[in-house]
Amino acid sequence: MKLLDGSVTAPLGFLAQGVNAEIKSKNKKDVGIIYSICPATAAGVFTQNKVRAACVDISQEHLRNNQAQAIVVNSGNANACTGSRGWNDALKTAAITAEALDIQKNDVLIASTGVIGGFLPMDRMEKGIRSAAAELSQAGAVNLANAIMTTDLRSKEIAVEFDIQGHSVRMGATAKGSGMIHPNMATMLGFITTDALISASCLQAALKASVDVSYNMVSIDRDTSTNDAVMILANGKAGNPVIDDVNSGDMKKFQEALDYINIAMSKMIARDGEGATHLLEIKAENAADIQTARMIARSVASSNLVKTAIFGNDANWGRVLCAAGYSGADFLPDKVDVFIGDIQVAKDGCIFDFSEEEVKPFLESETVLIKIDLKSGDKNALAWGCDLTYDYIKINADYRT
Amino acid sequence: MKLLDGSVTAPLGFLAQGVNAEIKSKNKKDVGIIYSICPATAAGVFTQNKVRAACVDISQEHLRNNQAQAIVVNSGNANACTGSRGWNDALKTAAITAEALDIQKNDVLIASTGVIGGFLPMDRMEKGIRSAAAELSQAGAVNLANAIMTTDLRSKEIAVEFDIQGHSVRMGATAKGSGMIHPNMATMLGFITTDALISASCLQAALKASVDVSYNMVSIDRDTSTNDAVMILANGKAGNPVIDDVNSGDMKKFQEALDYINIAMSKMIARDGEGATHLLEIKAENAADIQTARMIARSVASSNLVKTAIFGNDANWGRVLCAAGYSGADFLPDKVDVFIGDIQVAKDGCIFDFSEEEVKPFLESETVLIKIDLKSGDKNALAWGCDLTYDYIKINADYRT
Repeated sequence: MKLLDGSVTAPLGFLAQGVNAEIKSKNKKDVGIIYSICPATAAGVFTQNKVRAACVDISQEHLRNNQAQAIVVNSGNANACTGSRGWNDALKTAAITAEALDIQKNDVLIASTGVIGGFLPMDRMEKGIRSAAAELSQAGAVNLANAIMTTDLRSKEIAVEFDIQGHSVRMGATAKGSGMIHPNMATMLGFITTDALISASCLQAALKASVDVSYNMVSIDRDTSTNDAVMILANGKAGNPVIDDVNSGDMKKFQEALDYINIAMSKMIARDGEGATHLLEIKAENAADIQTARMIARSVASSNLVKTAIFGNDANWGRVLCAAGYSGADFLPDKVDVFIGDIQVAKDGCIFDFSEEEVKPFLESETVLIKIDLKSGDKNALAWGCDLTYDYIKINADYRT
Repeated sequence: MKLLDGSVTAPLGFLAQGVNAEIKSKNKKDVGIIYSICPATAAGVFTQNKVRAACVDISQEHLRNNQAQAIVVNSGNANACTGSRGWNDALKTAAITAEALDIQKNDVLIASTGVIGGFLPMDRMEKGIRSAAAELSQAGAVNLANAIMTTDLRSKEIAVEFDIQGHSVRMGATAKGSGMIHPNMATMLGFITTDALISASCLQAALKASVDVSYNMVSIDRDTSTNDAVMILANGKAGNPVIDDVNSGDMKKFQEALDYINIAMSKMIARDGEGATHLLEIKAENAADIQTARMIARSVASSNLVKTAIFGNDANWGRVLCAAGYSGADFLPDKVDVFIGDIQVAKDGCIFDFSEEEVKPFLESETVLIKIDLKSGDKNALAWGCDLTYDYIKINADYRT
């Protein structure tokens, strides 16, 4: 597997574009399209919030035949809590996109992100969609990556190439996150493209498994959104023998590439969490089972008190143990060792005589690693988060007004 | 029922004191005792965190016979994650207190609050306990209320008097909260005294029911502590006919008084949340069942995004609906109305044309009321929280170092 430049248009047969439609502001890109030159096998995972935007339900509906050819996305307005008018606006968004691209309406997936509870300005949406459709290109992926940002500071792009039985296969992705991120099924917007030829059932299985170890292990603020979605399009243009056995070596390679990409995106999202100054990587290791490891890693990554301690460069390992304790996981507190970077700070659930000086560089590093060794088995899990800072408050105290 | 001055020494036969033992600092009170002149019927509810301080386990053990005569408490050091030495220190704390008061060791309940993962300075603890024991008085309740504070800005005290079959009965309480507060069984330290005569089973039932509608409905930062405990002592000095039937009118009166006191304490704790500038009162009403109402009210009161919006005086009702949506409760989003103060801001889960000007005074008031009308039944629940502010970050980024 090797890294490629670019993102969603790195695989063969994909084009993209992002434009300014004055939904977010007068000059930021806010409407974009990802397009495959032929219908692609498609899969998605979506928010588990009971309050769901129309675009989530409609995209799920459009994925029933496991096929899609385009994703249309806007930022600046989530089109959530907008009732039947919002539902019609989302349907119209798909219809305009289908018409502009000359494809089937139900081959269009929709995603929206931004403020909840405002109607989409459909005139501007339509103008934006038509303009993005008219300007689709390989180079347009950069603009698409920008068009999906809300409070993100950086756009998030990645692409890789790997081999399936002598055929080069490419996979690319872009994502947005920043706020309202919490592990619960899909946790933000993530779009993945690949030119691999793969069956619908393998694609869905790979996506689900991958999201469980990536997007679902990211927490910025424990709030799951009404619009979270991760979608993947696989158009088969690589010409590889079809991947249609979940237990095959080819599937394993595909899964590895997908996990690599989704974990990279997840870490970028965590690092770019609202107001973040540190990426927080939590490893729960040697758990009796994988669920225990995941619950503990996520709980520690989600704790406001751990996150403020990291902001303050404070080796407050008691808060780490405490967050493990209320994770809901069953474990033996008296066996737990805690490490910050390379330095052990707690042993057997108890004070360990460590040097604050030695821990300091690990707390000051951009990525702070906390390891919780449960010494009860051999299952491991990683979770990512960020510190909780003054800027998180600033960003969220005046987001809407 | 009428309000009395004072707190835990307002009921007959109770004395208290708080002193400085140099555990928290050179001049703040940090060790205290609540004492009943005779053994009292006692009950408690404790943290559900898997990582529990020794004082929690030992107090539960000492409550097995439903009897206690004193509570000894220190702030500044939680004596949690301190292994067998911490366990022995907690036992020694009980033993010193018992000796100083000339009572049974297992009639002493223990509570500690403060930093996790440091050993108690037992020489200073002993000095503090002996000095508090020597100076017990009715007036000492004020010092006790101060001695249990950590990052609390205000001490919390209340007392009431009510009538049981012509006998005046008194009940008083003090509590501490501020950080690491989240609904999960007991959520902070709360001490209640009463001179009512009541059976052990009625006392435990009343406490459990009361905590469910008070302390368990408070959220500051979703972190449940290793040391949370609510304890009640009932010494029978009021001379009322014993309350020993959970379905009796007397039990109902006792429950009303206890709920009144615990809800008042809970609101004081939420209002005094770390960095708080607003008390947040969330009412979920007309739910199909009480669990749904509670889950939704707590979820909204716990949302970082709702809390930052309140700090910013922002009528961001979308975040309210979103937090209800990920509460785990089953409800129909399309039926939900949302009100801020008296002003409706969402109708049937959707945008409602409200005036930002009219909402403003309700957002600027010290107590911000948010009502979520589920229109699906007749069950209601209240939860309390506070806004999330720059000062929460400040307090928690440098708490330990």
